[in-house]
Amino acid sequence: MSGLIHFNLFEMNCVGHIQHGLWTHPANNRHRYTDLEYWTDLARLLERGLFDAVFLADVVGAYDRYRGGPETAIREAVQIPANDPLLVVPAMAAVTRHLGFAVTFSTTYEPPFAHARRMSTLDHLTKGRVAWNIVTSYLRSAARNFGLDDEIEHDLRYEIAEEYLEVLYKLWEGSWEDGAVLRDRERAVYTDPAKVHAIDHVGKHFRVAGPHLSEPSPQRTPVLYQAGNSERGKDFAARHAEAVFTGAVSPEALREEIADTRRRAAAFGRDPAHITFFPSASVIVAPTEREVEAKVAELRRHIRPEGFLAQRGSGIDLAAYGPEELIDDIVARGGDFTERAVRPLVGRGLRVRDVLDSVGRIGGGGPFFVAGTPGQVADEIERWADESGATGFNLMQYLSPGTAEDFIDLVVPELQRRGRYRTEYGDATLRERLLGPGAHRLPATHPGAAYRRA
Amino acid sequence: MSGLIHFNLFEMNCVGHIQHGLWTHPANNRHRYTDLEYWTDLARLLERGLFDAVFLADVVGAYDRYRGGPETAIREAVQIPANDPLLVVPAMAAVTRHLGFAVTFSTTYEPPFAHARRMSTLDHLTKGRVAWNIVTSYLRSAARNFGLDDEIEHDLRYEIAEEYLEVLYKLWEGSWEDGAVLRDRERAVYTDPAKVHAIDHVGKHFRVAGPHLSEPSPQRTPVLYQAGNSERGKDFAARHAEAVFTGAVSPEALREEIADTRRRAAAFGRDPAHITFFPSASVIVAPTEREVEAKVAELRRHIRPEGFLAQRGSGIDLAAYGPEELIDDIVARGGDFTERAVRPLVGRGLRVRDVLDSVGRIGGGGPFFVAGTPGQVADEIERWADESGATGFNLMQYLSPGTAEDFIDLVVPELQRRGRYRTEYGDATLRERLLGPGAHRLPATHPGAAYRRA
Repeated sequence: MSGLIHFNLFEMNCVGHIQHGLWTHPANNRHRYTDLEYWTDLARLLERGLFDAVFLADVVGAYDRYRGGPETAIREAVQIPANDPLLVVPAMAAVTRHLGFAVTFSTTYEPPFAHARRMSTLDHLTKGRVAWNIVTSYLRSAARNFGLDDEIEHDLRYEIAEEYLEVLYKLWEGSWEDGAVLRDRERAVYTDPAKVHAIDHVGKHFRVAGPHLSEPSPQRTPVLYQAGNSERGKDFAARHAEAVFTGAVSPEALREEIADTRRRAAAFGRDPAHITFFPSASVIVAPTEREVEAKVAELRRHIRPEGFLAQRGSGIDLAAYGPEELIDDIVARGGDFTERAVRPLVGRGLRVRDVLDSVGRIGGGGPFFVAGTPGQVADEIERWADESGATGFNLMQYLSPGTAEDFIDLVVPELQRRGRYRTEYGDATLRERLLGPGAHRLPATHPGAAYRRA
Repeated sequence: MSGLIHFNLFEMNCVGHIQHGLWTHPANNRHRYTDLEYWTDLARLLERGLFDAVFLADVVGAYDRYRGGPETAIREAVQIPANDPLLVVPAMAAVTRHLGFAVTFSTTYEPPFAHARRMSTLDHLTKGRVAWNIVTSYLRSAARNFGLDDEIEHDLRYEIAEEYLEVLYKLWEGSWEDGAVLRDRERAVYTDPAKVHAIDHVGKHFRVAGPHLSEPSPQRTPVLYQAGNSERGKDFAARHAEAVFTGAVSPEALREEIADTRRRAAAFGRDPAHITFFPSASVIVAPTEREVEAKVAELRRHIRPEGFLAQRGSGIDLAAYGPEELIDDIVARGGDFTERAVRPLVGRGLRVRDVLDSVGRIGGGGPFFVAGTPGQVADEIERWADESGATGFNLMQYLSPGTAEDFIDLVVPELQRRGRYRTEYGDATLRERLLGPGAHRLPATHPGAAYRRA
C-alpha cells in the first residue's frame, strides 16, 4: 500500500488511434472527433472521474510502409484522418477547471519560436494545466510533408531536439523576469522593459532573437512528457522529462526502467524523484465476470488486424515476407524498415506469422492489460503500481467514451475505497499535482531552470 | 438604401492592439486577454449582437524601431505581450453556434503542411465558421525570431505566399475527393483510399508530399481575408481574397479601391462580386450628444501617444529626427525604415511634428470614424456603406468589451429598424454568409477551385 495512483486518458484527434477496427463498434463515438462536443463531453467526463490529464498523441504523416503505400491506413482510418491536437485543448479547458492536457508536438519540423508561444498561450488559457509530450517524429512520410526526402537520422533528431529545448527554456524561463509585468495604471507602465530580455540564441540548428512574445504563464515551461526508448531517447528523457510514458511488459521490467532512468537523471544532476512514470494500461471492466467475458468477446469481433499491421508497418512491411521468415533474419539483411518500430520484435526468435497472429489480439502478453470485475481490476492496478513504483497509468481506449465511463463508474470508486485514488481535486497546476503544492515551476535541478535570471 | 451591413470585431490576443494607452482606462478589460473567460464572454456578446465574425490580428515580433529598441512597445504593451490567435478560437466556438472567426497567420515563417491542418481542424471544430487573414509579415524582429537576419524583401514574400497558397489549395481542395469518407461500418471501410491523393508538390520554396491529414471540412479552404496595399499586395488580394480589410479615408477613395480590386480580379478570371470589402470603423456612441462628448474626452485622457509612435515606429523612428524635417526628405535620403508602414505618410508634405501631433488623436482625418448618438452613427454607417459599396465594417475597439457592448446595445437596434442589419442568423457557414446559401466552398472562378479533381 502506497500513495495515490494517477490516471491520464490516452487520446488522439483522429478515428483510429491504437485499437484498430473498433470504430465499427456501434457504441464507439470516434468518428465524432471533428465535433467540439466530442471533446467537451470527454473533458467533463474525465473531470468527473478526477483524472490528471488527457494525453493527446499525434503524427504528421501517414503510415505508408505496409503493402507499399498508405492505402491500408487510409481505409482502416489508422491515424488518418488526424487533426491538430493543440486546438481541442482550449475547448476542453473552457468546460473544466482541473483536468490537465498533455499535447504531443515534434521538435523536428516546426520553428521553436512559434511553438513556444503556442504552449505559453495554452498554459495561460488553462491557468497552468498544460504538458508537452516531446517527440522527434519517426515517419518518413512526415519528413516528406516538411520539405525533406527522408527522416532525419535518429541521433541527429535528438541533437536538434536538445537545441530546440534550449531555445524554449531561454524563451520560457529566461526572457521575462518575474515581476516584469507591473500593470501599473497610474504610471501607465504595463511591463518594465528592463526585465524583458532578448535571448539572441545562435546555435547549430536555430537562430532566435526574442524576446518571447508571451508574458510568463503559471508554469512557464509546461510539464514535460517524454517516451524515449533508445539509449539516446532514454538520456533525453532523463535530462528533460518530468513524466515518462512507457509500455513496459511487467512490473519488474518497469521497476528496472524507472531505476535506470532515475540513475541517468541523477547523473545529470537532477533530483530523480522529480521524474514520474506512467505505463499504459488497457482495462476492460464490468460488474460481473460473465459481463467481462461478453465485453471482451464483443470487442474482439470488431478488431481489424490489417489496421494494426498498417501501423506496425511503420517498422516493417510484413506483407512483403513469407510467414515462416525470421524477423531477426529480415532485420539482419537490412531493408526498408524503421529501426525504432522494429526494435520490440528483434532478438525474440519471432517469425512473420507470430507477429501476424499476435496483432490486434485483445489480451495479455504485452503492456499492462486487465479484464475483470472492479475488484479484480483494482487489485491488478495496485499490484502493478506498487511492484513497479509507477506514479500512475495512461488508460488506453477501446470505446470512446465507453472505456473511460466504465473506468470512472466502476474502478475509480473501488480505488477510492482503498485510499488509492483522489476524492477531489485541490486547486493546483498540473506540475503541482505531480510534485506537490507550490511546485508550479520547473524544479531547481531541472536543466531548464539554469536559464532563469538571478 | 441597399442590403445588409455586416460587422466584424477587430481583436488581437494581446493588451494593446491599436488604441494605445487605453488599457489604463478603469473600464477596460484588455489585461484579461490571458483568461479564457475574456474570450468566451466576448464571443457570447458578439453572437448576441449578430456579428459576422471576430477578426484576430497577429504579429510574431516586437516593434523595435522607435527609439532604437523594443522598450517603448514593451512598456506600453504595444502588441507585446501577444499570445497565439488560433488557440482562443476553439473556446469561443464552444460557446457559440454562428459567430465566425478570422485568424491572422503569416505565409513567411511556418511550414504550409502544419498550417493547412490547423485551419482544417478549426473549420471542422467550428463547422465552417473560419476565415484566414493572409499576411506576409513586415517586422524585421519577426524575421529574427525565425532564423533570418532581416525581413525577406517585399516582392519575394509575395512570391513565397503565392506558392504557399498553391500548396494549401492542393491539400484543401485536391487531396481528398468528395465522397472519399465512407464510414461504412458493415464493410469496415472508413475512407476509400482511391479517393485520397498525395499532392507531391515540388516548387521553388516548398516540397510537400501529402496526402492532407485532415478529411474535408465544411468549407475546405477557409474564407480568405487579405489586406494588401502595395501593387503586388493588391494583385495578391485580387487573385485570392474573398474579404478585403481596408483603411480607406473616404467613401470615394474606398469606392475606387473596390473598383480597382474588382477590375484586377476580373482580369484574373474571377467573378468580381465574390470579393467583399470591410473598411475599419471607429465608433463612439452614447444615447445623447452630451454623453458622447464626455465619453470621447474620457478616452482621450487615457490615450498614450508614445504607444502609437512605437507601433508606427515599425516604419520610421520619429524620435531620431527633428520636428521640422519633412517625411518625404527622410524617406528620399533612405534610412532605417519599413517601406510599407511609411507609405501612408509619403507624398503628403508632412513634417515630423505633424505626425507626432496626430498620433493617438481620437477623431477624424483618417479611416472611418464617427462619434455620435445611435441615429447619427447609423446615418454615417449607411452613408459610408452606400457611397463606397462596402460589404460591412471591422469595428475597432477602444474599450473591451465596452465598445462592442455600446455598439450592440445602441447602434445595432437602430440599423435593424432601418432594415440594414440582420435580425437573426440563418444556419450558414461563414462563406455562405458572404456569398449566399449553398456557397460553403470556394466559387468555381476562384484560383483554389482549379486544384479540385474532376
